[in-house]
Amino acid sequence: MILAQCIPNVSEGRRRQVIDRLAGAFGGSDDVALLHVHPDIDHNRTVLTAVGAPEALLDAAEELYARAIEAVDMRRHRGVHPRIGAVDVCPFVPLEGHGTGMAECIELARRLGERVARRFGLPVFLYREAASAPHRRDLSAIRRGQFEGLEAKLADPAWQPDFGPAEAHASGGATVIGARGPLIAFNVVLDSEDLAAARAVAARVRASSGGLPGIKAMGVVLGSRQLVQVSMNVEDPAVTPLHVAFGAVRAAAKEHGVQVLESELVGLAPLDSVAAAAADSLRLVDFGPDRILEQAIESSRHSGALRASGDRESATS
Amino acid sequence: MILAQCIPNVSEGRRRQVIDRLAGAFGGSDDVALLHVHPDIDHNRTVLTAVGAPEALLDAAEELYARAIEAVDMRRHRGVHPRIGAVDVCPFVPLEGHGTGMAECIELARRLGERVARRFGLPVFLYREAASAPHRRDLSAIRRGQFEGLEAKLADPAWQPDFGPAEAHASGGATVIGARGPLIAFNVVLDSEDLAAARAVAARVRASSGGLPGIKAMGVVLGSRQLVQVSMNVEDPAVTPLHVAFGAVRAAAKEHGVQVLESELVGLAPLDSVAAAAADSLRLVDFGPDRILEQAIESSRHSGALRASGDRESATS
Repeated sequence: MILAQCIPNVSEGRRRQVIDRLAGAFGGSDDVALLHVHPDIDHNRTVLTAVGAPEALLDAAEELYARAIEAVDMRRHRGVHPRIGAVDVCPFVPLEGHGTGMAECIELARRLGERVARRFGLPVFLYREAASAPHRRDLSAIRRGQFEGLEAKLADPAWQPDFGPAEAHASGGATVIGARGPLIAFNVVLDSEDLAAARAVAARVRASSGGLPGIKAMGVVLGSRQLVQVSMNVEDPAVTPLHVAFGAVRAAAKEHGVQVLESELVGLAPLDSVAAAAADSLRLVDFGPDRILEQAIESSRHSGALRASGDRESATS
Repeated sequence: MILAQCIPNVSEGRRRQVIDRLAGAFGGSDDVALLHVHPDIDHNRTVLTAVGAPEALLDAAEELYARAIEAVDMRRHRGVHPRIGAVDVCPFVPLEGHGTGMAECIELARRLGERVARRFGLPVFLYREAASAPHRRDLSAIRRGQFEGLEAKLADPAWQPDFGPAEAHASGGATVIGARGPLIAFNVVLDSEDLAAARAVAARVRASSGGLPGIKAMGVVLGSRQLVQVSMNVEDPAVTPLHVAFGAVRAAAKEHGVQVLESELVGLAPLDSVAAAAADSLRLVDFGPDRILEQAIESSRHSGALRASGDRESATS
């Protein structure tokens, strides 16, 4: 079965019942699996990670929009993470090993965009690899002004939606749908309440201000914990690995006299990145995913070096 | 297909042609895969990691004995790692997720022991979970005196072989076969030529001298590189994780004014250990193998949350 990945970010991270209902949108088909649900109280946002066969994944994503638009009223939404709508952003991500590349993901993004625009009257912006113009590739450019600035944005000829009306949905706002490569959403919590320090650290490490390539970063307050956080996207772990981003945050924080308390992944990380972080900390040579037992067994099966009859048994038993 | 793991250690780590021929013993069946081959010049030893269906794995292991006994003459073998025979030790290791437990591995060890004793006239000692008496559980106790001390050992009523004659094979010595849980063979290279320092570090970290639980360690010289190494077995990574063993070696070396240069796995490591090392170094909370994309997809398939038809396709295409 061909599989694609879909990672919707919904503007609700607090009401457990609503989050469960959102997650349930991915429960209707044997061809879709919800791999992870990551609610965040301070961001007031939930990131869902799902994989599935393309058609079934489209159906599930549309159902997620239905449930989010029913449950989330952006006019009352507060959170530290920028957002433009009830389903704020919904990227499709290729799973090369499972038969989907970027072309398929762009197609999925366009099809989902058409469907949710028509069904819910939602303005849809396509981003990254699915963008219809260079100035619309970047998510933060699309989201600038946020939900509250949508009226002004949609009045600008440069910001007409790719699908749907040039008018925000009253409670659901707008949505950004697209196709992108894998990225790692990675937050580092500082042992401090000093937002200025977190912002300075974010500015130091992010690519746009001369920091590390492929790193987006912002400093935010975690009101629920009286701490601050450097919230990052590691957009190209092959260029700037997770552990390099972490080390840079730690070093920059230290210059402000602040320690790192802990970190978290939002959603999932690719095995390569985890292996690279382990190899770095243990100074391992000649190490990669092929040196991990479970992975080596799977690879043997996929390459045909080992008969894959176990998989057939588990699929039919 | 039920799978077990077999990790023979052969006393040849230098002659590439011989090593290739040894590896070829695992190439005769679609039901066996050789996952890794780790030759070491200084240890003069190669560790092969194979998985397979039990009967096919037994056949391949027997073939490995045939090839090793043909190619390796212990009377001329030199290396820094203790050894007792051409195939020095051959453990079977359960793969719980693939249907083999310790009972099956003990059975495999006994059957392989009977077969190689009969076919090659080799004295066979069973160890660890397959041991026939408490004093024979520990590999280092069986191997004490090494190949050169076999005549004396086999004259001792406490050290009669479990299978085969009470006389060493002239060129092949004896062999140790058994069943054990997963362990990680992990070597840390020090940036030093000081064997006394490596030995002191090993003594500090190993369980038998009051160090870390489940750690075996010895200091050896890497003549090929003019460096010293702390060669370890991490026998229970759930109790003493890889990164804790590494940290202890680094700290003990520092007390001797010595830095860690690099480390290596011999063979493979379980995903849990790699994930734990990454989590430790990145201070990740709520992290485990379930937060790794590839693993989460596989788990969905194995649990039935995601239809596993892709596996059937790949098995038949």
